[in-house]
Amino acid sequence: MDAIEISAANLTVLQFFIGLAGTVSFSVSAVLSVVRDRADVTAAILVGVITAIGGGTIRDITLGVPVFWAQDMSYIWTAIAASLITFLAYPLMARRYLNMAFLFFDALATAMFAIVAVEKVWDLNFGLPVAPVLLGVLTAYGGGILRDTMLNRETVIMSRELNVLPVLLGCIAMVLVLEFAPEYRALGAVACILFVFGLRSAAIYWKLRLPEWAMMGGRMK
Amino acid sequence: MDAIEISAANLTVLQFFIGLAGTVSFSVSAVLSVVRDRADVTAAILVGVITAIGGGTIRDITLGVPVFWAQDMSYIWTAIAASLITFLAYPLMARRYLNMAFLFFDALATAMFAIVAVEKVWDLNFGLPVAPVLLGVLTAYGGGILRDTMLNRETVIMSRELNVLPVLLGCIAMVLVLEFAPEYRALGAVACILFVFGLRSAAIYWKLRLPEWAMMGGRMK
Amino acid sequence: MDAIEISAANLTVLQFFIGLAGTVSFSVSAVLSVVRDRADVTAAILVGVITAIGGGTIRDITLGVPVFWAQDMSYIWTAIAASLITFLAYPLMARRYLNMAFLFFDALATAMFAIVAVEKVWDLNFGLPVAPVLLGVLTAYGGGILRDTMLNRETVIMSRELNVLPVLLGCIAMVLVLEFAPEYRALGAVACILFVFGLRSAAIYWKLRLPEWAMMGGRMK
Repeated sequence: MDAIEISAANLTVLQFFIGLAGTVSFSVSAVLSVVRDRADVTAAILVGVITAIGGGTIRDITLGVPVFWAQDMSYIWTAIAASLITFLAYPLMARRYLNMAFLFFDALATAMFAIVAVEKVWDLNFGLPVAPVLLGVLTAYGGGILRDTMLNRETVIMSRELNVLPVLLGCIAMVLVLEFAPEYRALGAVACILFVFGLRSAAIYWKLRLPEWAMMGGRMK
Repeated sequence: MDAIEISAANLTVLQFFIGLAGTVSFSVSAVLSVVRDRADVTAAILVGVITAIGGGTIRDITLGVPVFWAQDMSYIWTAIAASLITFLAYPLMARRYLNMAFLFFDALATAMFAIVAVEKVWDLNFGLPVAPVLLGVLTAYGGGILRDTMLNRETVIMSRELNVLPVLLGCIAMVLVLEFAPEYRALGAVACILFVFGLRSAAIYWKLRLPEWAMMGGRMK
Repeated sequence: MDAIEISAANLTVLQFFIGLAGTVSFSVSAVLSVVRDRADVTAAILVGVITAIGGGTIRDITLGVPVFWAQDMSYIWTAIAASLITFLAYPLMARRYLNMAFLFFDALATAMFAIVAVEKVWDLNFGLPVAPVLLGVLTAYGGGILRDTMLNRETVIMSRELNVLPVLLGCIAMVLVLEFAPEYRALGAVACILFVFGLRSAAIYWKLRLPEWAMMGGRMK
């Protein structure tokens, strides 16, 4: 077996673990985000679970396939456990690291969920080539948008920071890999995840934003 | 036939009437909640119908089964009629009883919809044992969350009152009945509904809330 | 062939072009609506696409049929192109015409999407006669409600203007045509679209609203 050749079984295992890691990350980030809202344990777990499985649920419902967390209960148990542990353990974390930890876990889960979703939509041969990109972005942000909507917060859509664009570029890159270099699929997925996560981290750290000319409103009299 | 043994047909009839009563209750509570927004008749009926059938629609779409109100038109006609009657009749109600009536009907529908949803998800053998509980809670609150989101109100999720926990406990109790004592199913369903409704009513009346240690934020420096 | 008799193929072509025109109109109106939010190009396109295909997606998911934009990629490419062109071209438009153009395109798309949705639900024989009307209204406003929810804006539901009622009446009229005069279906669809668009335009221009007695709250002591 070639070094870069990965069997279908290994690929599924890789996707499964990326999915679980994304689930943990989204649960942790969601529960950390409701500390300041003084959520009780019920609300914390509910918000953690909905954020973690919400994006994938929107994706699967749009695809018309059974929702992933009813097919394999690992995801939902993982989300519940990660939310509960975060609820119990967050006071061990100094308050000034809270927001940083939230952003880190959120960026990681966003990258993982987007790329795994592109692969799933691609494999279902659904609305190529646009739907994998659109549903990749929606899977990554859907859970967070549901959370922010239920909590009456601003959603990510109008965020001034470089937020949706890195995910969009990563999804387009993954579609190009699947179309033109399917033999590098596993490697490409990991590279795209690192690309999205790196760009998001850089955007968070240096507060990167798009230049003026790429934004509306400023150019008007 | 044993006293506690209830035939499948009777069970379906019981669920049907509980569902209709929940539909009436949610329609009434939703229309009462838009009095202060000065809703017109179109908006009142639309809000009543969406609140009444929204939670079950989210449940059925997640389950991948046909939505209940297209299978049996009774629910939607009931929601329209209850909304219209509430729109016409609310001025007969003294303003100070308005909020109390809203809370009563809302708590009743919440309890009924949660328990009937647990049974439906259980019968479909979908994502046991977590999905019946999660979808029970979402069915009970989904319609209200849709309503509050469309009306730009705070949703129930971060409510300081004892709100989601009673429903969660009731759904878990119903799952335990279905697993360990399926022969007491009808009795168990009625008991769980009364339990949720009682606990919610007590929480509303005495303004019960979880103790400090069960809430986040307070424990931090 | 009779003058008013239109073959099934022609009908499909008519619906297709009405759908495309509605897609363009919703994309344009959505992108114009985020000028003042200073959306960047990614956000503008995402908001344009979600507004244009959101209502129909909610309709198709509720119907349990494959989403229309995955069946025929024309809609999504049209939405992307119209959003991008609007993003690039809007500075050519004087600011004072911006809002007027937004309202015009929004009213046009609302009328088109509502009536085409009534026809689709009717043809699927889904929940007659209420579901075609309910899903007609939800298809027309669903995309806008998703957009406004994500952008933390007030949704259309509680709008003081004559907004939902014209669409509701148009959908009921279309159901009556399909039930009692199916041979005038194409003509009826065009007439219903013009009726909704005309009434909405009149409501916008003259700021029409329902009379006091049709609104809640005012009648209470």
